[in-house]
Amino acid sequence: MNIKITGSGSYIPTEIVTNKDFTKHVFLNDDGTPFPLPNEVITEKFYDITGIEERRYVTDDLQTSDIATIAAKRAIEDADIDPETLDYIIFAHNFGNVKKGAIQTDLLPSLATRVKFDLRIKNPKCVAYDMLFGCPGWVEGVIQAQAFIKAGMAKKCLVIGAETLSRVVDMHDRDSMIYSDGAGATIIEATEDDGGILAHASATFTYDEAYYLFFGNSFNKEHDPDVRYIKMHGRKIYEFALSQVPKAMKECVEASGIDIGNIKKVLIHQANEKMDEAIIQRFYKLFGQTAPEGIMPMSIHKLGNSSVATVPTLYDLLVKGNLDNHSILKGDVILFASVGAGMNVNAIVYRM
Amino acid sequence: MNIKITGSGSYIPTEIVTNKDFTKHVFLNDDGTPFPLPNEVITEKFYDITGIEERRYVTDDLQTSDIATIAAKRAIEDADIDPETLDYIIFAHNFGNVKKGAIQTDLLPSLATRVKFDLRIKNPKCVAYDMLFGCPGWVEGVIQAQAFIKAGMAKKCLVIGAETLSRVVDMHDRDSMIYSDGAGATIIEATEDDGGILAHASATFTYDEAYYLFFGNSFNKEHDPDVRYIKMHGRKIYEFALSQVPKAMKECVEASGIDIGNIKKVLIHQANEKMDEAIIQRFYKLFGQTAPEGIMPMSIHKLGNSSVATVPTLYDLLVKGNLDNHSILKGDVILFASVGAGMNVNAIVYRM
Repeated sequence: MNIKITGSGSYIPTEIVTNKDFTKHVFLNDDGTPFPLPNEVITEKFYDITGIEERRYVTDDLQTSDIATIAAKRAIEDADIDPETLDYIIFAHNFGNVKKGAIQTDLLPSLATRVKFDLRIKNPKCVAYDMLFGCPGWVEGVIQAQAFIKAGMAKKCLVIGAETLSRVVDMHDRDSMIYSDGAGATIIEATEDDGGILAHASATFTYDEAYYLFFGNSFNKEHDPDVRYIKMHGRKIYEFALSQVPKAMKECVEASGIDIGNIKKVLIHQANEKMDEAIIQRFYKLFGQTAPEGIMPMSIHKLGNSSVATVPTLYDLLVKGNLDNHSILKGDVILFASVGAGMNVNAIVYRM
Repeated sequence: MNIKITGSGSYIPTEIVTNKDFTKHVFLNDDGTPFPLPNEVITEKFYDITGIEERRYVTDDLQTSDIATIAAKRAIEDADIDPETLDYIIFAHNFGNVKKGAIQTDLLPSLATRVKFDLRIKNPKCVAYDMLFGCPGWVEGVIQAQAFIKAGMAKKCLVIGAETLSRVVDMHDRDSMIYSDGAGATIIEATEDDGGILAHASATFTYDEAYYLFFGNSFNKEHDPDVRYIKMHGRKIYEFALSQVPKAMKECVEASGIDIGNIKKVLIHQANEKMDEAIIQRFYKLFGQTAPEGIMPMSIHKLGNSSVATVPTLYDLLVKGNLDNHSILKGDVILFASVGAGMNVNAIVYRM
């Protein structure tokens, strides 16, 4: 028995927010003082480091579970399965449903319950739960689906990663330009087909790293201190990612028994182009090699960092032939890798 | 190999809130009109149905992850394990950390990350995630731990259920009297010892039931409509629970191969004494029997409904000999069962 992704779907929100749209913002330092550069310079420097030109926000009427349902429907259709045969719906997110203009997170019922309701699935044996694991949530959801299948508790799982970070950003913080909204979904099945998940690796670093990403106050000190936003210690995260992500990727590749030269694509969480480039170089360096041209498809330029939605969306774009100059064939080996709040790091080696 | 609970711990908050404390409240109907009975009559009727005399609230300085850490430390000590050997921390909750006086949920980083941080665990291979599955979250967490162990991905897991419902109740809603705060934790291990988990059952009912428990506005129409509270359709939940919980329990017992007569205790989610009594009678009736005297230990009178914390706390009280007139011996079979938002239902047959 192998465990494969038999279908995928994604939802790319329709509101395009360009870097130019941020030139109207009032950027502040964390102590509330004005940031000492003109916005045009700020956004240019931002682009140089992150590679982000645009990001996507959902329209005001949509919440995280809504876009998850759209991606889930597409994945179910792509896998050509009867949704009533699903054993699990695993929904990875980190902030729940946050309505436009509201600050409260709505987690009752769970977002997985909402998706199951919206898909009109009747079968009560389809167990639906939410899972919080930072940006690597979708990869971890796939690892959990694998566990249920291996343990004989499931044959078919829907694994979703969806987030609307636009609802939790502090517009006075330059880091807000990174974040984006999106949803990606996949069907994970036990199959007699060749390939599938060959190895995985997961880790949670908390001793020094637990609060590298955190919920904190606005840089605007006039804001209500009880209203908090996604905040990060960017420099620390950058250094952490560079040191830990290549190691986890290497460990996973070694566990898979696959030769590094046989990896066709590396689908890595899209948080910062420069960081991802440094990670991929370090990863190949661990094998005494340099990263091959075109090994790492990037979606960050147009889609930003949509947290848990990033990797499944990238996968969906790749397999559907929607990434310029990138393609993938049956039998090709790909490596998924992610890093984010927790700090969590994970990876999967997968044969198409 | 068997999968057993090798240690447990709980935290019972220190603030005792009696039914009398609610006589100062202004209870309203859902349309905002005054509830047409004196508070003394309301609280008396409430007691007659639910059996709740008192509930526990955390002190203002504590949040959900804080009390989870206390329960977790006690479970680790009880199991006598090195916390660095844990492969997973699975934290079931439904509302995240909500600070006293604030309305915003803080989920960044995840509560599992915070507990791991507070326990000062260094080992990055101890994977920590949060899981949302309504009140049955702790039971489902145990089922997930079982999956990881069976799949060869783990040997030792810490499974926590903790919640501070006092932070999300609408004080104008009589249902607010049900809710309580608490934390329970257990260590789940692969072992060569006899017994352990014999069978489990899980289900998610959403087609009609998804919004039986939901996040809704205060009955006081002058409150901000963007501030929401835990709300329920009590009658529908009662009928749902009576129809589905005994069925899930029966299915689980049958899968275990254990004769109904050999079940020593049934540890059921404590939401309403009358409901639990009706569930247990229906369950035994499905086997053509009546419920034995003393089969169902109850904590609801003094502890109320602390959501995910209820069942692990009840287990901890039972095994530590802290429940009057109830005891349990090695080799005894117990049945865990829970029901809650989702609507989720689950059960585990377990030999001590």
